[in-house]
Amino acid sequence: MNDTFLKACRGEKTDYTPAWIMRQAGRYLPEYQKIRSRIDFLTLCKTPEIAAEVTIQPVDILKVDAAILFSDILIPVEAIGMKIEFSESKGPIIYNPVRDEAAIYKLRDIRPEEDTPFVMETIKILRERLNVPLIGFSGAPFTLATYMIEGGSSRNFINTKKMMYQTPAFFSMFMNKITDTVISYLRAQIDEGVHAIQIFDSWAGILSPVDFSRFALSYVQRIVSAFKGKVPIIYFAFNASAMLNLVKQSGADIIGLDWKIEMTDAIEEIGNGIAVQGNLDPSVLFGAKDLIRKRIAGILSGARDAKGHIFNLGHGILPETPVESAIAAVESVHELSDRR
Amino acid sequence: MNDTFLKACRGEKTDYTPAWIMRQAGRYLPEYQKIRSRIDFLTLCKTPEIAAEVTIQPVDILKVDAAILFSDILIPVEAIGMKIEFSESKGPIIYNPVRDEAAIYKLRDIRPEEDTPFVMETIKILRERLNVPLIGFSGAPFTLATYMIEGGSSRNFINTKKMMYQTPAFFSMFMNKITDTVISYLRAQIDEGVHAIQIFDSWAGILSPVDFSRFALSYVQRIVSAFKGKVPIIYFAFNASAMLNLVKQSGADIIGLDWKIEMTDAIEEIGNGIAVQGNLDPSVLFGAKDLIRKRIAGILSGARDAKGHIFNLGHGILPETPVESAIAAVESVHELSDRR
Repeated sequence: MNDTFLKACRGEKTDYTPAWIMRQAGRYLPEYQKIRSRIDFLTLCKTPEIAAEVTIQPVDILKVDAAILFSDILIPVEAIGMKIEFSESKGPIIYNPVRDEAAIYKLRDIRPEEDTPFVMETIKILRERLNVPLIGFSGAPFTLATYMIEGGSSRNFINTKKMMYQTPAFFSMFMNKITDTVISYLRAQIDEGVHAIQIFDSWAGILSPVDFSRFALSYVQRIVSAFKGKVPIIYFAFNASAMLNLVKQSGADIIGLDWKIEMTDAIEEIGNGIAVQGNLDPSVLFGAKDLIRKRIAGILSGARDAKGHIFNLGHGILPETPVESAIAAVESVHELSDRR
Repeated sequence: MNDTFLKACRGEKTDYTPAWIMRQAGRYLPEYQKIRSRIDFLTLCKTPEIAAEVTIQPVDILKVDAAILFSDILIPVEAIGMKIEFSESKGPIIYNPVRDEAAIYKLRDIRPEEDTPFVMETIKILRERLNVPLIGFSGAPFTLATYMIEGGSSRNFINTKKMMYQTPAFFSMFMNKITDTVISYLRAQIDEGVHAIQIFDSWAGILSPVDFSRFALSYVQRIVSAFKGKVPIIYFAFNASAMLNLVKQSGADIIGLDWKIEMTDAIEEIGNGIAVQGNLDPSVLFGAKDLIRKRIAGILSGARDAKGHIFNLGHGILPETPVESAIAAVESVHELSDRR
């Protein structure tokens, strides 16, 4: 197996900088679109043979150094009692949002083997077929809470913030329930054999540092503690680049970076005891190949002093991205990076 | 006139920390809603007597230390040829977005006295009636460009980024045209008597530092140079808190801060040669008064070493905000702040 990704996670020497791309399995790939034309998103997530197939697609096409389980962060949320629809136009819709204490007591405990057997089965298939490491993942508790409270995506997250500010004890109970769910869910993935895990905190960036610390970070720390030393843990808090001093306190082995900070500034903040992942603006893939190459060279050079560096975009690849640009990006990373 | 705001802008000693609130004239005020029930948004912007009235409302109600001209950042954009509708549900819609070179050549030169006489007239009325300084404003060139290119708000700003990356010379010509427009527009406001200006870069945060520097900052610098020393200039780049090292290079006298950074960290980055404005999370106003007070105390204390500090939210006040919380916030700033 190509273990360059895992070596970089652990800060060990590698022959080149490994690369993968957030949402690398997805809409920008014609091969994925073909499958999606005959099966809806949720069914795809729940059909191991096909979920495994789309997980593998970008490994073959882009030559990335890691695969990430094809799934959705709301899968465990559905498992504990949320009624979810994935709308093509509006994104996820949750029909029974959590707005009061009673709604929390109704949430079930997750039993991953029974509630999400398709996830376990997909991992099993992938372990047999992949020649690169497999990344398991979960949404971070705060991000999952926002979906559960708002009932989907939101503009200003007013219901979430009201709950935080007006009933902090209730919010804390809720967050602990979600954290327990995430831990059970990730443990099952690790037991099944994923080589690393990523915790996606997509909405951490709507919080001020003081709120992030109190209402989001402490729960991430509990998750990281549960798995520290077992598999490498990546924590990606989107739009939180101005509070990396807090983000790094998550205890994660690798900090995922969005594109809103210079790599050198990020490493100065994080220090050289933690590896980093990132951070090309996904929209640069709409530029010409020489622009892509130039920007990647800048990131690789900026990351030279990091404990370890895994190349990635600073957010998920955009659906409209030309596939050849994604291929060129991975190629450039492999070509331009030195042994380190 | 209460000149505390202007003193703080200049970094002079003040008896207390001055406060104003972005979007302080607006939907959260019943007095504003009453007027809006009988007149649409654009007509309101273009009717000096009423625009002046809603500008003054929050000065009386909240006791803020500055007023900001009631208008919209797209007013000068309309003046140079964009066909705009302000939709209640969808935000601004531009029917003739700029997507090619020909569209640029069609843009007119702005003649503020003839194209936006209502703005000049509103300022004239306000100069007579206000007992606090009046802030004029404009959108920053990059932010205005995104609206003009995308045709309104956007999720991923793909058209803007494509233009930046694929036809940089064209994008630069476009940006120079907008910059000239902004300079003429702000000059007219200053000639009419506004005491300070704020440049709103609401979408700067979608750019990586290298792109911000190249495609946004240099144009802001040109605007700042045009007015430096004439009136205090506030530059507010939203979601750009991880690149304040660049934002401060705008040359502005005051840097506006969103709520995604600790005030002390922001000042460490900006230095004590530039004043700061901010930075309470607008959603804190949904919390109880003691929470609001506590968070404000933290911000005031964090800003102690700044050259000057003007209290504000880290973004516009949310429409659903309880008025009494906004009043309490301004009151708390005045009460808790020391002579400095």
